[in-house]
Amino acid sequence: MNHAQIDSIKHLYFDDLQTGQQFESGTHEVDAAQIRAFAQQFDPQPFHLDADAAKDLFFGGLVASGWHTAAITMRLLVSSGVPIAGGLIGAGAEISWPKPVRPGAVLRVHSEIMDLKPSRSRPDLGIAILRSETRDQSGDVVQVLIAKLVVPKK
Amino acid sequence: MNHAQIDSIKHLYFDDLQTGQQFESGTHEVDAAQIRAFAQQFDPQPFHLDADAAKDLFFGGLVASGWHTAAITMRLLVSSGVPIAGGLIGAGAEISWPKPVRPGAVLRVHSEIMDLKPSRSRPDLGIAILRSETRDQSGDVVQVLIAKLVVPKK
Repeated sequence: MNHAQIDSIKHLYFDDLQTGQQFESGTHEVDAAQIRAFAQQFDPQPFHLDADAAKDLFFGGLVASGWHTAAITMRLLVSSGVPIAGGLIGAGAEISWPKPVRPGAVLRVHSEIMDLKPSRSRPDLGIAILRSETRDQSGDVVQVLIAKLVVPKK
Repeated sequence: MNHAQIDSIKHLYFDDLQTGQQFESGTHEVDAAQIRAFAQQFDPQPFHLDADAAKDLFFGGLVASGWHTAAITMRLLVSSGVPIAGGLIGAGAEISWPKPVRPGAVLRVHSEIMDLKPSRSRPDLGIAILRSETRDQSGDVVQVLIAKLVVPKK
């Protein structure tokens, strides 16, 4: 999807969403410097900080923190993924990381609306269940995020 | 728990863990600059970037990205929370954000082992279900994280 197409569908309201609707984000390339910088601040464990030390540890090499993958996924969703009116506001989510993200991975997020339901407490809002697969350049899924989004009605 | 106590229980293996076991982290104070810096990189939405603009938006003021709260929680867990041998390695999690994190919030993580089960595929590993509540200075819960951790056996 190009920028013109994204622009034309910007600001989707709850009324505009349909189960099965799909969205594809742009891409982001992850390198070792980004992995280390995030880890130093938020997840200072050797397999996220030191490629040499990481060789003998669980993942067998430097890998991104799962929370770094989640943050990159959010960046892709916000900047090019799912243009919800009022912004992407999550009440909660399930997340899993089936494959580690290593330096050089090029990530892209494929999203689909799984379910839509009106809010019980707020008649002006709906809840959208969005399933987002973060995939690497081989198409392998590195993260599955099933998020409960708060979406305004028109 | 002080540093000496943490040191004395460092490197807990699967065999050392018990259902009901609890852990308390140190604290981290969140300010507006941290909220904006994280948002610029990973979640560039106006309610995370601009206190003035945020007044008229969903949260009624500047709030931290949920992924920022998750990242701070991970930092607290890694540096002072739950001393698992081999590190904190998550296969997946459920996460929710019952209350927004605003500038000035002082966060602390209270964790409890909810369940322990051997890995089906790897006899050298176990799976621990860890429930972590991130609480602010009033004791209100701003995030609940139920994580599936991969823990080595002795």
